[in-house]
Amino acid sequence: MGIDDCSFDPAREDRTIVLGVVFRGGLYLDGATSTDVEIDGKDATEKLVEMIKSSPHYRQLRVVMIDTITLAGFNIVDILRLNQETGRPVIAVTRQKPNNDEVKAALRNFPDWEDRWRTIQNAGDLNEIHVRDNTIFAHIAGISTNDAEAIVQISSTRANYPEPLRVAHLLAHGLRARIHQ
Amino acid sequence: MGIDDCSFDPAREDRTIVLGVVFRGGLYLDGATSTDVEIDGKDATEKLVEMIKSSPHYRQLRVVMIDTITLAGFNIVDILRLNQETGRPVIAVTRQKPNNDEVKAALRNFPDWEDRWRTIQNAGDLNEIHVRDNTIFAHIAGISTNDAEAIVQISSTRANYPEPLRVAHLLAHGLRARIHQ
Repeated sequence: MGIDDCSFDPAREDRTIVLGVVFRGGLYLDGATSTDVEIDGKDATEKLVEMIKSSPHYRQLRVVMIDTITLAGFNIVDILRLNQETGRPVIAVTRQKPNNDEVKAALRNFPDWEDRWRTIQNAGDLNEIHVRDNTIFAHIAGISTNDAEAIVQISSTRANYPEPLRVAHLLAHGLRARIHQ
Repeated sequence: MGIDDCSFDPAREDRTIVLGVVFRGGLYLDGATSTDVEIDGKDATEKLVEMIKSSPHYRQLRVVMIDTITLAGFNIVDILRLNQETGRPVIAVTRQKPNNDEVKAALRNFPDWEDRWRTIQNAGDLNEIHVRDNTIFAHIAGISTNDAEAIVQISSTRANYPEPLRVAHLLAHGLRARIHQ
Protein backbone atom coordinates (compact mmCIF):
# COMPACT_ATOMS: atom_id res chain seq x y z
CA MET A 1 0.00 0.00 0.00
CA GLY A 2 1.31 3.42 -1.00
CA ILE A 3 0.15 6.31 1.17
CA ASP A 4 0.17 10.06 0.53
CA ASP A 5 -1.76 13.07 1.79
CA CYS A 6 -3.74 15.68 -0.11
CA SER A 7 -2.55 19.25 -0.05
CA PHE A 8 -4.64 21.54 2.14
CA ASP A 9 -5.33 25.13 3.05
CA PRO A 10 -4.36 25.62 6.73
CA ALA A 11 -6.35 28.85 6.85
CA ARG A 12 -9.59 27.06 6.02
CA GLU A 13 -9.14 23.43 7.03
CA ASP A 14 -8.45 21.50 10.22
CA ARG A 15 -8.01 18.08 8.67
CA THR A 16 -6.86 16.66 5.38
CA ILE A 17 -7.38 13.41 3.50
CA VAL A 18 -4.82 10.67 3.22
CA LEU A 19 -5.12 8.15 0.37
CA GLY A 20 -3.89 4.57 0.36
CA VAL A 21 -3.55 2.73 -2.94
CA VAL A 22 -3.01 -0.99 -3.11
CA PHE A 23 -0.58 -2.16 -5.77
CA ARG A 24 0.49 -5.58 -6.94
CA GLY A 25 4.25 -5.05 -6.99
CA GLY A 26 4.91 -1.92 -9.03
CA LEU A 27 2.55 -3.18 -11.64
CA TYR A 28 -1.08 -2.51 -11.13
CA LEU A 29 -3.57 -0.89 -8.91
CA ASP A 30 -5.83 -3.22 -7.01
CA GLY A 31 -7.66 -0.99 -4.56
CA ALA A 32 -7.96 2.43 -2.99
CA THR A 33 -8.88 3.58 0.48
CA SER A 34 -8.66 6.75 2.55
CA THR A 35 -8.66 8.31 5.97
CA ASP A 36 -8.39 11.84 7.35
CA VAL A 37 -5.84 13.29 9.75
CA GLU A 38 -5.58 16.52 11.68
CA ILE A 39 -3.36 19.22 10.20
CA ASP A 40 -0.32 19.53 12.49
CA GLY A 41 -2.08 17.01 14.75
CA LYS A 42 -0.89 13.82 16.39
CA ASP A 43 -3.34 11.24 15.07
CA ALA A 44 -1.51 10.14 11.89
CA THR A 45 -0.16 6.84 13.28
CA GLU A 46 -3.47 5.78 14.79
CA LYS A 47 -5.46 6.77 11.67
CA LEU A 48 -3.06 4.91 9.36
CA VAL A 49 -3.22 1.75 11.52
CA GLU A 50 -7.01 1.91 11.31
CA MET A 51 -7.03 2.55 7.54
CA ILE A 52 -4.57 -0.25 6.78
CA LYS A 53 -6.21 -2.84 9.03
CA SER A 54 -9.70 -2.11 7.75
CA SER A 55 -8.68 -2.42 4.08
CA PRO A 56 -10.23 -5.43 2.33
CA HIS A 57 -6.67 -6.08 1.07
CA TYR A 58 -5.11 -6.06 4.53
CA ARG A 59 -4.35 -9.76 4.68
CA GLN A 60 -2.65 -9.64 1.31
CA LEU A 61 -0.61 -6.51 2.05
CA ARG A 62 3.10 -7.17 2.24
CA VAL A 63 4.57 -3.69 2.75
CA VAL A 64 3.38 -0.22 3.68
CA MET A 65 5.03 2.72 1.92
CA ILE A 66 4.51 6.33 2.93
CA ASP A 67 5.58 9.52 1.25
CA THR A 68 7.81 10.80 4.10
CA ILE A 69 7.13 10.29 7.82
CA THR A 70 5.10 13.50 8.11
CA LEU A 71 1.55 13.94 6.88
CA ALA A 72 -0.65 17.04 6.94
CA GLY A 73 2.03 19.47 8.06
CA PHE A 74 3.74 18.05 11.16
CA ASN A 75 1.47 15.12 11.94
CA ILE A 76 4.37 12.70 12.37
CA VAL A 77 3.98 8.98 11.74
CA ASP A 78 5.57 6.75 14.37
CA ILE A 79 6.76 4.11 11.91
CA LEU A 80 7.85 1.69 14.64
CA ARG A 81 4.34 1.69 16.09
CA LEU A 82 2.83 1.53 12.59
CA ASN A 83 4.96 -1.54 11.90
CA GLN A 84 4.08 -3.19 15.21
CA GLU A 85 0.37 -2.50 15.09
CA THR A 86 -0.13 -3.49 11.46
CA GLY A 87 2.37 -6.35 11.41
CA ARG A 88 3.70 -4.97 8.11
CA PRO A 89 7.13 -3.55 7.27
CA VAL A 90 7.08 0.21 6.73
CA ILE A 91 9.17 2.16 4.20
CA ALA A 92 8.83 5.95 4.37
CA VAL A 93 10.43 7.38 1.27
CA THR A 94 11.65 10.92 0.67
CA ARG A 95 13.28 12.41 -2.40
CA GLN A 96 15.42 14.81 -0.45
CA LYS A 97 17.29 14.49 2.81
CA PRO A 98 15.56 16.89 5.20
CA ASN A 99 17.70 19.45 6.99
CA ASN A 100 17.44 18.53 10.68
CA ASP A 101 18.11 22.06 11.87
CA GLU A 102 15.27 23.41 9.77
CA VAL A 103 12.90 20.67 10.92
CA LYS A 104 13.78 21.35 14.55
CA ALA A 105 13.31 25.11 14.11
CA ALA A 106 9.83 24.55 12.60
CA LEU A 107 8.90 22.05 15.30
CA ARG A 108 9.72 24.55 18.07
CA ASN A 109 6.43 26.31 17.23
CA PHE A 110 4.67 23.39 18.92
CA PRO A 111 4.45 23.32 22.72
CA ASP A 112 5.05 19.54 22.55
CA TRP A 113 7.90 19.87 20.08
CA GLU A 114 10.20 17.54 22.04
CA ASP A 115 7.67 14.73 21.73
CA ARG A 116 7.43 15.23 17.99
CA TRP A 117 11.17 15.44 17.61
CA ARG A 118 11.47 12.14 19.52
CA THR A 119 9.08 10.46 17.08
CA ILE A 120 11.26 11.63 14.21
CA GLN A 121 14.40 10.39 15.99
CA ASN A 122 12.73 7.04 16.66
CA ALA A 123 12.34 6.55 12.91
CA GLY A 124 16.10 6.02 12.88
CA ASP A 125 18.59 6.94 10.21
CA LEU A 126 17.66 7.72 6.64
CA ASN A 127 18.87 4.97 4.33
CA GLU A 128 20.22 5.82 0.91
CA ILE A 129 18.43 3.88 -1.79
CA HIS A 130 19.64 3.74 -5.37
CA VAL A 131 16.96 3.60 -8.04
CA ARG A 132 18.45 3.50 -11.53
CA ASP A 133 20.78 6.50 -11.62
CA ASN A 134 18.97 8.30 -8.82
CA THR A 135 19.36 8.34 -5.03
CA ILE A 136 16.36 8.62 -2.74
CA PHE A 137 16.10 8.15 1.02
CA ALA A 138 13.97 6.04 3.33
CA HIS A 139 13.16 5.58 6.99
CA ILE A 140 12.36 1.92 7.55
CA ALA A 141 10.78 -0.23 10.26
CA GLY A 142 10.44 -4.00 10.49
CA ILE A 143 12.58 -4.68 7.43
CA SER A 144 16.28 -4.80 6.57
CA THR A 145 17.95 -2.08 4.54
CA ASN A 146 18.69 -4.57 1.78
CA ASP A 147 15.12 -5.79 1.53
CA ALA A 148 13.77 -2.23 1.63
CA GLU A 149 16.12 -1.22 -1.17
CA ALA A 150 15.10 -4.25 -3.25
CA ILE A 151 11.38 -3.48 -2.75
CA VAL A 152 11.80 0.18 -3.67
CA GLN A 153 13.78 -0.78 -6.77
CA ILE A 154 11.35 -3.49 -7.89
CA SER A 155 8.32 -1.26 -7.37
CA SER A 156 9.84 1.77 -9.16
CA THR A 157 8.48 0.58 -12.50
CA ARG A 158 7.59 3.89 -14.16
CA ALA A 159 9.82 6.47 -12.54
CA ASN A 160 12.71 6.71 -10.10
CA TYR A 161 10.15 6.40 -7.32
CA PRO A 162 7.91 3.56 -6.09
CA GLU A 163 4.83 3.27 -8.29
CA PRO A 164 2.36 2.98 -5.35
CA LEU A 165 3.62 6.36 -4.05
CA ARG A 166 3.72 7.96 -7.50
CA VAL A 167 0.07 6.99 -8.04
CA ALA A 168 -1.09 7.88 -4.50
CA HIS A 169 0.43 11.34 -5.02
CA LEU A 170 -1.09 11.76 -8.44
CA LEU A 171 -4.57 10.81 -7.22
CA ALA A 172 -4.31 12.91 -4.06
CA HIS A 173 -3.54 15.92 -6.24
CA GLY A 174 -5.76 15.15 -9.24
CA LEU A 175 -8.85 14.51 -7.10
CA ARG A 176 -8.05 17.06 -4.39
CA ALA A 177 -10.98 19.29 -5.24
CA ARG A 178 -13.43 16.38 -4.94
CA ILE A 179 -12.13 14.72 -1.82
CA HIS A 180 -13.50 15.88 1.47
CA GLN A 181 -13.43 14.78 5.07
CA MET B 1 -8.94 8.50 -20.60
CA GLY B 2 -11.13 5.92 -18.86
CA ILE B 3 -14.37 7.24 -17.39
CA ASP B 4 -16.72 5.75 -14.80
CA ASP B 5 -19.26 7.08 -12.33
CA CYS B 6 -19.52 6.61 -8.58
CA SER B 7 -22.46 4.72 -7.19
CA PHE B 8 -25.05 6.94 -5.49
CA ASP B 9 -28.09 6.95 -3.27
CA PRO B 10 -31.01 8.35 -5.33
CA ALA B 11 -33.01 8.94 -2.14
CA ARG B 12 -30.37 11.34 -0.80
CA GLU B 13 -28.47 12.68 -3.77
CA ASP B 14 -29.24 14.69 -6.91
CA ARG B 15 -25.86 14.41 -8.56
CA THR B 16 -22.99 11.97 -8.58
CA ILE B 17 -19.29 12.15 -9.35
CA VAL B 18 -17.69 10.89 -12.53
CA LEU B 19 -13.97 10.11 -12.54
CA GLY B 20 -11.62 10.23 -15.50
CA VAL B 21 -8.25 8.51 -15.28
CA VAL B 22 -5.52 9.10 -17.83
CA PHE B 23 -3.55 6.02 -18.82
CA ARG B 24 -0.53 5.53 -21.02
CA GLY B 25 -1.77 2.56 -23.07
CA GLY B 26 -2.92 -0.07 -20.61
CA LEU B 27 0.23 0.45 -18.65
CA TYR B 28 0.25 3.23 -16.18
CA LEU B 29 -1.78 5.94 -14.66
CA ASP B 30 -0.75 9.44 -15.54
CA GLY B 31 -3.51 11.63 -14.19
CA ALA B 32 -6.95 11.81 -12.64
CA THR B 33 -9.79 14.27 -13.00
CA SER B 34 -13.49 14.45 -12.19
CA THR B 35 -16.82 16.09 -12.85
CA ASP B 36 -20.33 15.70 -11.51
CA VAL B 37 -23.54 14.86 -13.36
CA GLU B 38 -27.19 14.91 -12.47
CA ILE B 39 -28.77 11.59 -11.51
CA ASP B 40 -31.16 10.66 -14.35
CA GLY B 41 -30.33 14.06 -15.82
CA LYS B 42 -29.32 15.13 -19.32
CA ASP B 43 -26.01 16.87 -18.73
CA ALA B 44 -23.59 13.91 -19.06
CA THR B 45 -22.38 14.73 -22.57
CA GLU B 46 -21.78 18.39 -21.83
CA LYS B 47 -20.04 17.66 -18.50
CA LEU B 48 -17.78 15.02 -20.07
CA VAL B 49 -16.79 17.39 -22.90
CA GLU B 50 -15.89 20.01 -20.32
CA MET B 51 -13.96 17.51 -18.12
CA ILE B 52 -12.01 16.07 -21.05
CA LYS B 53 -11.13 19.41 -22.65
CA SER B 54 -10.03 20.98 -19.38
CA SER B 55 -7.71 18.08 -18.50
CA PRO B 56 -4.02 19.03 -18.51
CA HIS B 57 -3.58 15.84 -20.57
CA TYR B 58 -6.17 16.80 -23.20
CA ARG B 59 -3.70 17.43 -26.02
CA GLN B 60 -2.06 14.06 -25.43
CA LEU B 61 -5.32 12.11 -25.16
CA ARG B 62 -5.81 9.69 -28.02
CA VAL B 63 -9.05 7.89 -27.06
CA VAL B 64 -11.91 8.32 -24.62
CA MET B 65 -13.34 5.16 -23.05
CA ILE B 66 -16.52 5.11 -20.97
CA ASP B 67 -18.05 2.36 -18.91
CA THR B 68 -21.33 2.10 -20.90
CA ILE B 69 -23.15 5.02 -22.52
CA THR B 70 -25.22 5.75 -19.41
CA LEU B 71 -23.93 7.50 -16.31
CA ALA B 72 -25.74 8.23 -13.04
CA GLY B 73 -28.86 6.25 -13.78
CA PHE B 74 -30.19 7.29 -17.19
CA ASN B 75 -28.00 10.28 -17.92
CA ILE B 76 -27.18 9.11 -21.43
CA VAL B 77 -23.96 10.12 -23.17
CA ASP B 78 -24.36 11.21 -26.78
CA ILE B 79 -21.14 9.60 -28.00
CA LEU B 80 -21.36 11.19 -31.47
CA ARG B 81 -21.44 14.65 -29.91
CA LEU B 82 -18.74 13.66 -27.41
CA ASN B 83 -16.54 12.57 -30.30
CA GLN B 84 -17.23 15.72 -32.32
CA GLU B 85 -16.79 18.18 -29.48
CA THR B 86 -13.63 16.62 -28.05
CA GLY B 87 -12.10 15.59 -31.37
CA ARG B 88 -11.31 12.18 -29.83
CA PRO B 89 -12.63 8.74 -30.74
CA VAL B 90 -15.04 7.34 -28.15
CA ILE B 91 -15.36 3.69 -27.09
CA ALA B 92 -18.18 2.92 -24.62
CA VAL B 93 -17.63 -0.57 -23.30
CA THR B 94 -20.14 -2.86 -21.65
CA ARG B 95 -19.66 -6.37 -20.32
CA GLN B 96 -23.18 -7.46 -21.13
CA LYS B 97 -25.46 -6.75 -24.04
CA PRO B 98 -28.33 -4.71 -22.61
CA ASN B 99 -31.87 -5.95 -23.24
CA ASN B 100 -33.46 -3.22 -25.38
CA ASP B 101 -36.99 -4.01 -24.21
CA GLU B 102 -35.98 -3.61 -20.58
CA VAL B 103 -34.13 -0.37 -21.30
CA LYS B 104 -37.13 1.02 -23.16
CA ALA B 105 -39.51 0.00 -20.36
CA ALA B 106 -37.33 1.78 -17.78
CA LEU B 107 -37.00 4.86 -19.99
CA ARG B 108 -40.77 5.22 -20.28
CA ASN B 109 -40.76 6.61 -16.74
CA PHE B 110 -39.30 9.80 -18.19
CA PRO B 111 -41.59 12.30 -19.89
CA ASP B 112 -38.84 12.86 -22.50
CA TRP B 113 -38.16 9.14 -22.96
CA GLU B 114 -38.26 9.34 -26.74
CA ASP B 115 -35.41 11.83 -26.71
CA ARG B 116 -33.33 9.56 -24.48
CA TRP B 117 -34.12 6.52 -26.56
CA ARG B 118 -33.00 8.43 -29.67
CA THR B 119 -29.64 9.20 -28.02
CA ILE B 120 -29.19 5.49 -27.34
CA GLN B 121 -30.16 4.63 -30.92
CA ASN B 122 -27.71 7.27 -32.22
CA ALA B 123 -24.88 5.41 -30.52
CA GLY B 124 -25.36 2.76 -33.22
CA ASP B 125 -24.91 -0.97 -32.98
CA LEU B 126 -22.99 -2.68 -30.23
CA ASN B 127 -19.78 -4.17 -31.59
CA GLU B 128 -18.55 -7.52 -30.32
CA ILE B 129 -14.99 -7.29 -29.11
CA HIS B 130 -12.88 -10.32 -28.26
CA VAL B 131 -10.45 -9.93 -25.39
CA ARG B 132 -8.49 -13.11 -24.75
CA ASP B 133 -11.20 -15.77 -24.35
CA ASN B 134 -13.89 -13.26 -23.43
CA THR B 135 -16.41 -11.25 -25.44
CA ILE B 136 -17.39 -7.73 -24.44
CA PHE B 137 -19.37 -5.11 -26.32
CA ALA B 138 -18.79 -1.52 -27.36
CA HIS B 139 -20.59 1.45 -28.85
CA ILE B 140 -18.07 3.46 -30.85
CA ALA B 141 -17.84 6.91 -32.42
CA GLY B 142 -15.12 8.39 -34.64
CA ILE B 143 -13.19 5.15 -34.95
CA SER B 144 -13.40 1.94 -36.98
CA THR B 145 -14.52 -1.31 -35.41
CA ASN B 146 -11.11 -2.82 -36.11
CA ASP B 147 -9.21 0.00 -34.46
CA ALA B 148 -11.58 0.03 -31.47
CA GLU B 149 -11.08 -3.72 -31.04
CA ALA B 150 -7.30 -3.35 -31.25
CA ILE B 151 -7.31 -0.54 -28.66
CA VAL B 152 -9.52 -2.48 -26.24
CA GLN B 153 -7.30 -5.54 -26.63
CA ILE B 154 -4.02 -3.65 -26.21
CA SER B 155 -5.29 -1.75 -23.16
CA SER B 156 -6.72 -4.85 -21.43
CA THR B 157 -3.41 -5.55 -19.72
CA ARG B 158 -4.58 -6.87 -16.35
CA ALA B 159 -8.03 -8.27 -16.97
CA ASN B 160 -10.44 -8.98 -19.80
CA TYR B 161 -11.37 -5.32 -19.68
CA PRO B 162 -9.55 -2.10 -20.58
CA GLU B 163 -7.22 -1.09 -17.77
CA PRO B 164 -8.29 2.62 -17.74
CA LEU B 165 -11.89 1.50 -17.10
CA ARG B 166 -10.90 -1.15 -14.55
CA VAL B 167 -8.99 1.49 -12.58
CA ALA B 168 -11.62 4.24 -12.97
CA HIS B 169 -14.19 1.80 -11.58
CA LEU B 170 -11.98 0.70 -8.72
CA LEU B 171 -11.22 4.29 -7.67
CA ALA B 172 -14.83 5.41 -8.05
CA HIS B 173 -15.86 2.64 -5.66
CA GLY B 174 -12.86 2.67 -3.30
CA LEU B 175 -13.01 6.43 -2.76
CA ARG B 176 -16.80 6.77 -3.00
CA ALA B 177 -17.21 7.75 0.64
CA ARG B 178 -14.69 10.59 0.27
CA ILE B 179 -15.75 12.01 -3.04
CA HIS B 180 -18.36 14.71 -3.04
CA GLN B 181 -19.84 17.18 -5.45
